[in-house]
Amino acid sequence: MPTERIRDHAGQGATTVAARRRRLRADQARQLADLLRQQVLTGGFPDGTLPHETAIGADYRTTRNTVRQALDLLRAEGLVERLPGVGTVVVAEKYPHGLDRLMGLAETLREHGRVSNEVRSAGPVAAPAPVAERLRVPVGSDVLYIERLRRLNGLPLSLDLTYIPLDLGTALLGADLENTDVFRLLEAITGQPLGHAEITLEAVNADAHSATVLQAPRGSAVLMLERLTHLADGRPVDLEFIRFRGDRITMSGLLRRSL
Amino acid sequence: MPTERIRDHAGQGATTVAARRRRLRADQARQLADLLRQQVLTGGFPDGTLPHETAIGADYRTTRNTVRQALDLLRAEGLVERLPGVGTVVVAEKYPHGLDRLMGLAETLREHGRVSNEVRSAGPVAAPAPVAERLRVPVGSDVLYIERLRRLNGLPLSLDLTYIPLDLGTALLGADLENTDVFRLLEAITGQPLGHAEITLEAVNADAHSATVLQAPRGSAVLMLERLTHLADGRPVDLEFIRFRGDRITMSGLLRRSL
Repeated sequence: MPTERIRDHAGQGATTVAARRRRLRADQARQLADLLRQQVLTGGFPDGTLPHETAIGADYRTTRNTVRQALDLLRAEGLVERLPGVGTVVVAEKYPHGLDRLMGLAETLREHGRVSNEVRSAGPVAAPAPVAERLRVPVGSDVLYIERLRRLNGLPLSLDLTYIPLDLGTALLGADLENTDVFRLLEAITGQPLGHAEITLEAVNADAHSATVLQAPRGSAVLMLERLTHLADGRPVDLEFIRFRGDRITMSGLLRRSL
Repeated sequence: MPTERIRDHAGQGATTVAARRRRLRADQARQLADLLRQQVLTGGFPDGTLPHETAIGADYRTTRNTVRQALDLLRAEGLVERLPGVGTVVVAEKYPHGLDRLMGLAETLREHGRVSNEVRSAGPVAAPAPVAERLRVPVGSDVLYIERLRRLNGLPLSLDLTYIPLDLGTALLGADLENTDVFRLLEAITGQPLGHAEITLEAVNADAHSATVLQAPRGSAVLMLERLTHLADGRPVDLEFIRFRGDRITMSGLLRRSL
């Protein structure tokens, strides 16, 4: 990243030379960190060890100080650890969740291990208006509420709050919620496949209580997914509010320019 | 949310009654907050004011303490403010970014206002291996690097780091990068539409420097998007690393069970 060749539009004005240099190095560290983090997450370092700082500096045509600052950014994210005498090693435990097809957690992570669900609560609740409208049931009628802490190979991944119409929910209550995706159970109960889901994704800071449940640091970034899932016949049957630990999940998909 | 009817699986063991009650109230506050936040974000309170605490408590069959705790969660996220004598008002400035079609920022937010771009740097850099491989250019050959802080109606929305093959990049350098999406410019320069993009989404905590640039609190949640965009003929032409302020963007789309 040979900075002297880059036109810099924003450094004009009354900033001092030292402040400008610090900002430039921070910009370059982020630039390098983004390239390295992509390799970390996609298995670009097969033996789990990053090259030596000087080798990275040569490959990316940047200074050792910038390399150190970039590695610090990745360490702060929990993606690498720097071990004296060993170097920089990958410690990320981040799993890919498909964004292309509607899938349950156990389905999408099948090749990465076993998903288990701690059912924190499960039972009927009177549907508040926003739930009733979306599930197309009368306001105040009972729906099944399920709250699950979901783990992959024992590691907490997500906290899921789920609302299901009670005609399907009653059968769900007797099912093996600890070891089975709700998607699979809904398909088994109704005898028809799911159709589609409307989703909304956001990044939020975990509140203290959610962080405790997810065993994550307070304030840590959470990927929040709201999802309304419909059966193949169009009936909405599953409203979920899901908090994924940001350090454990990536979502990947493909977008097209024309539909 | 009548708690006594909910089977509680996780509260067993040596927790005290008081601790169990606190946990239960925190669970219910999150449950309520998720329902209210969805309404806040989708314009469910047309006059921008939430009902009184007691009205919310009645609607959701929960206590006033739980309502207060839920509103505190929304306030901590910057979605509402609580004004003495007025009540709880919506202050969210969160805009929907489509996840269904490949669109530039100005295109997707067209109805919400004007997108402007502060070009922090723009110029050729020697392509490091991870950039060269993805853009299918020789390692070390020049590519155009652009760094932009993107604003909607003056509010910082995202920080975009962009790599473009130099044969297209040279024409881009002379274009109006301040006011035009790179997507539009690439289509104008190449005379063909874009085809598809591979995307990866993550939630991360903003490092100190990125937070400063985005004018967001240090550590605030960022929606990180990595995107490799191809022309209709399949050629990869645009590799981007985008940090969206978590409090300013939601991503919405539709998933199908079968492809």
